[in-house]
Amino acid sequence: MTEKRIYNFNPGPATLPLPVLEEMQKEMLNYQESGMSVMEISHRSSLFDNIINDAIERTKRLLGLDDRFQVLFLQGGASLQFAMIPMNFLPDGKSADYVNTGTWSTKAIKEAEIQNKSHHVVASSEDRDFAYIPKNIGFNKDAAFVHITSNNTIKGTQWHEFPDTGDVPIISDMSSDIFSRQLDIDKFGMIYGGAQKNIGPSGICMAIIRDDMFKLIPAGIPSMLDYNTFLKKNSLYNTPPTFSIYTVQLVLKWIEETVGGLAAMEQRNREKAETLYSYIDSSDFFRGTTDTDSRSFMNVTFRLPSEDLEKKFIEEATNSGLGGLKGHRSVGGCRASIYNAMPVEGVKALVEFMQKFEKANG
Amino acid sequence: MTEKRIYNFNPGPATLPLPVLEEMQKEMLNYQESGMSVMEISHRSSLFDNIINDAIERTKRLLGLDDRFQVLFLQGGASLQFAMIPMNFLPDGKSADYVNTGTWSTKAIKEAEIQNKSHHVVASSEDRDFAYIPKNIGFNKDAAFVHITSNNTIKGTQWHEFPDTGDVPIISDMSSDIFSRQLDIDKFGMIYGGAQKNIGPSGICMAIIRDDMFKLIPAGIPSMLDYNTFLKKNSLYNTPPTFSIYTVQLVLKWIEETVGGLAAMEQRNREKAETLYSYIDSSDFFRGTTDTDSRSFMNVTFRLPSEDLEKKFIEEATNSGLGGLKGHRSVGGCRASIYNAMPVEGVKALVEFMQKFEKANG
Repeated sequence: MTEKRIYNFNPGPATLPLPVLEEMQKEMLNYQESGMSVMEISHRSSLFDNIINDAIERTKRLLGLDDRFQVLFLQGGASLQFAMIPMNFLPDGKSADYVNTGTWSTKAIKEAEIQNKSHHVVASSEDRDFAYIPKNIGFNKDAAFVHITSNNTIKGTQWHEFPDTGDVPIISDMSSDIFSRQLDIDKFGMIYGGAQKNIGPSGICMAIIRDDMFKLIPAGIPSMLDYNTFLKKNSLYNTPPTFSIYTVQLVLKWIEETVGGLAAMEQRNREKAETLYSYIDSSDFFRGTTDTDSRSFMNVTFRLPSEDLEKKFIEEATNSGLGGLKGHRSVGGCRASIYNAMPVEGVKALVEFMQKFEKANG
Repeated sequence: MTEKRIYNFNPGPATLPLPVLEEMQKEMLNYQESGMSVMEISHRSSLFDNIINDAIERTKRLLGLDDRFQVLFLQGGASLQFAMIPMNFLPDGKSADYVNTGTWSTKAIKEAEIQNKSHHVVASSEDRDFAYIPKNIGFNKDAAFVHITSNNTIKGTQWHEFPDTGDVPIISDMSSDIFSRQLDIDKFGMIYGGAQKNIGPSGICMAIIRDDMFKLIPAGIPSMLDYNTFLKKNSLYNTPPTFSIYTVQLVLKWIEETVGGLAAMEQRNREKAETLYSYIDSSDFFRGTTDTDSRSFMNVTFRLPSEDLEKKFIEEATNSGLGGLKGHRSVGGCRASIYNAMPVEGVKALVEFMQKFEKANG
């Protein structure tokens, strides 16, 4: 760890790979001998074309996408996608299936409701405060799509196997686990995610959409809300968040070239999660909040014996250079977000601290 | 000029103040002893609250806004605002007036059309390729609003006096001149602009909206397209583009503390524009493309005797460290964008280069 940097367990915006930050710092005043910062170059320049196209090519290689899949860069975060998805892909006369696994799924469903779009919540884990991923779901065979949230940042659950929906395409919000593991892309009509957890800064959202989905888009959608606008212009219909796309490009390069690809990234992420969960399981002091088979490898949620101890734990951890461990304000408790850029050493340091804290307070 | 940096006349994304870039570079790995980059801190932290609130307070002071005006940070650029404005502020039974002064006005009008919103184009300068700002416009007294584009980046024209629209609020796209000059805010119901020309990077859009406008917003708008969502949550309904807002904060601080406020900023911008236009007027080789009284102080458009000479001029200028002088691809010719962060020395260097070029090729 570079002097003065902390281990940052924030849920998003989140820690970024140090080599990426160092490269951005080095190039801040003069990108590739252009005499300009990346922030100052034109989005219509060959310099920026190289950046966005490299980010797209790395996305395709890392996720093993074939030519059916288009990579788009959007704004407004996943929250705007919640509205755009039914607007684009849910024509009159059709209905969509939604699975509700927590706060973000609930918000996605709300945006279909606001637009009076026909939809069914085919499964929900709300009965046990979203502590698990539903199984054996009865999907509608004629649904336009099935919407799921692959990882639930707030509740700490994650889909480890994606459901069989037959011919119905899955659309998944992957904001908090995109590029954290390998993916069988064939099940999906669309995956999307804000970059600010696993692949970059906030303010840029990646969407990967299968060719046939674009044909469903009706006429009459405002230009900036129509996925076809972004498809036709390689995400350059208007000025995109250039510096954010550059950051994503550097993080994807780091995953590909430094970590060694998505299989290696997944391996590293599994190792981190297992280190943390196995300590929690061995402890009578700390306890997990979710069903074991639904545990998130990205957001490890846990409780201590009392709220007072939780407060003390978070404070002392912060003072020891372990930041961002407070649970979401809607659920309380503790949460360690261990996205791609969190090094194994950071998780080991956290476990050591937890052991010491348990000894002193248990 | 720092060694190796060029004078960057790009139309947006555009040059940024060097002290701002240097501060960002310095703080890239560790913001205010937090042990994190600004990109890595939580948007729910007090550190970020300080950033966004400081940006808002500086906006209010610089523009002299009273408590009626709310400052919002949005995504999607001005292009998304083109759709959101009629969606929010043009209820059934009402109509809006639009003035068409070029590419961006045309796009704003198109987004009202797409939504089948009643509107009138009450004036247009299309008859002379948008080379002027229309005068003596007959506005509709019962219009919901009048939409104008205060500065036309592509055509090089600018409103120097805003029209009298009686009680009808003006909504102005100020993407290319926001914070470049003082403003009589009383005429406006809303001003908005992408940051990437005068106040920051691309990917963040500022909107300043008068209190009474929010009451016009109908129910049933998707959350991320409803200005009330941003109002109620101080632009923090979902994760905002934190690093972009931080950059805007630093640029506003630079305008306020280094330049000395908006009057001084305007004075500096006038000096730059007058230096450039007076040379063009004195030359038989270079010629301006717009009516004299409609000239933009931000985007100075000009032609040379032939397209071959224009190409040569742009090439040789680039080689001399004067970048971004090519006119928009839709109009050709040359354009020098001289936003806030372009120093007077940059404009003087450009004029010297133009004199030399004229001598060698005239």
